[in-house]
Amino acid sequence: MSTNGTTNGSNKELDPNQGGDANKKTYHKQPTGEALKTANAHSADNELTLYGSCFCPFVHRVWISLEHKGLPYAYREVDVYRKPKELTDINPRGLVPALRHGEWGSYESTVLMEYLEDLDKGKPLLPQDPKLRAESRLWSDHINRHIIPAFYRYLQAQDSEDQVKFAGQLREQIAKLVDAADPQGPFFLGDELTFVDVQLAPWIVRLGKVLKPYRGWPDPEPGSRWEKWVKAVEAAGPVQRTTSTDELYLDSYERYAENRPNTSQVREAINSGMQMP
Amino acid sequence: MSTNGTTNGSNKELDPNQGGDANKKTYHKQPTGEALKTANAHSADNELTLYGSCFCPFVHRVWISLEHKGLPYAYREVDVYRKPKELTDINPRGLVPALRHGEWGSYESTVLMEYLEDLDKGKPLLPQDPKLRAESRLWSDHINRHIIPAFYRYLQAQDSEDQVKFAGQLREQIAKLVDAADPQGPFFLGDELTFVDVQLAPWIVRLGKVLKPYRGWPDPEPGSRWEKWVKAVEAAGPVQRTTSTDELYLDSYERYAENRPNTSQVREAINSGMQMP
Repeated sequence: MSTNGTTNGSNKELDPNQGGDANKKTYHKQPTGEALKTANAHSADNELTLYGSCFCPFVHRVWISLEHKGLPYAYREVDVYRKPKELTDINPRGLVPALRHGEWGSYESTVLMEYLEDLDKGKPLLPQDPKLRAESRLWSDHINRHIIPAFYRYLQAQDSEDQVKFAGQLREQIAKLVDAADPQGPFFLGDELTFVDVQLAPWIVRLGKVLKPYRGWPDPEPGSRWEKWVKAVEAAGPVQRTTSTDELYLDSYERYAENRPNTSQVREAINSGMQMP
Repeated sequence: MSTNGTTNGSNKELDPNQGGDANKKTYHKQPTGEALKTANAHSADNELTLYGSCFCPFVHRVWISLEHKGLPYAYREVDVYRKPKELTDINPRGLVPALRHGEWGSYESTVLMEYLEDLDKGKPLLPQDPKLRAESRLWSDHINRHIIPAFYRYLQAQDSEDQVKFAGQLREQIAKLVDAADPQGPFFLGDELTFVDVQLAPWIVRLGKVLKPYRGWPDPEPGSRWEKWVKAVEAAGPVQRTTSTDELYLDSYERYAENRPNTSQVREAINSGMQMP
């Protein structure tokens, strides 16, 4: 049954994200490919449970962290547009990622990544040296406040002049981060995947799988430090094991690329010039 | 000598923040009152040095943290609008707070507060329990992304309808934080000043010293949980020792309250609808 009274001659349920057009793509409700295998391997109940949506980059961060650490956990796919009770019990705003640990739960991807660090179990993502921890947090903050908003402004821009402008802003913010990275790499702090890499990884994946097909975002310049970083992140086991097939991202982000209403709180924030949710 | 070629008939140097009018107030360049005493007591060189501006709430956070921990440190007042080299050496963007520790330095108030925690010296602000640490970071994030932008939108709004709207938003975001606090208090987690209290403290001070005189922000409701919190924060030693006299805030924020150009990157961000710097 359609929930919005518009069936458009189709038997398929029309999703609010399709913007009233049954021919439009909407978000996927199950991971695919490697991510589906990983989700299936973590379907059994566990006191540590990640509630996520397969297309969501903020969920992707926490999922990569869990895989990196090798902790036992359960993965639960939830439909954020329907906000199930198990999710709103943890986060009244019904946003993913949300993490339940026993009777307790919390949310916000960076908070959850820090929480997993504080458990002090499995392979750490933050180094021990307070100065390197500060560098990691400083550049994670840069990703959250400068790179991610630029990514969405660019993806949502419908006007070609705006697209050129926002592509330039995104490139500039990425360049600052690359300048701050270890010169050899391939990762941010050197030869191992750490906190900043995981903060950025979901957007590295989506530069290639979303911005490239929808906006013509170019592959990294051959031989550049950026290319080295992108390749290392894409090849990292925890990233591969939590990444779905190309089609999932292409379908799930069509609504962003067309800047349809009801897409997400991120979209509304970008369009209204407010802080990101 | 005036640096902008406009002397307006006055012998006094005209500051860009005065918006071309020598009768307008501008920001103070030295702390006053208790904060001045503390700055003077920390004027000797130290390997741990805070570069700050006396009116800046983000600096205030780090200064409160240093006082709370009782670490040896130097305080250096810098004029951010002139971006001295000792500051740009640490932060190329020339923003305060900046912290130097030996040969190394970093910036961003939350990053610096986490750094001081990681040094594991003096009285901690983050609790040991990972769950309480996560709660602290979650609500610090709420302060940074919801309370602070609402504070500036309200202070900078010139239109009275906007002022009413933004006052309501600020009240609503504070109410969410109060709901998340320990019911007894008086502080966020209970009877001791911790991370969230310090993240919020500079704005608690400025609700009374800036929003009250400029916008009629009301005192907390007598007997409320919020009143208990405000009083406890205002009375805390580290807050008192880093707070200047009322006049300093009144003068320094006139340019925000009148929404003058060149006031700050925070102002530009709020006015353009971009992310906070």
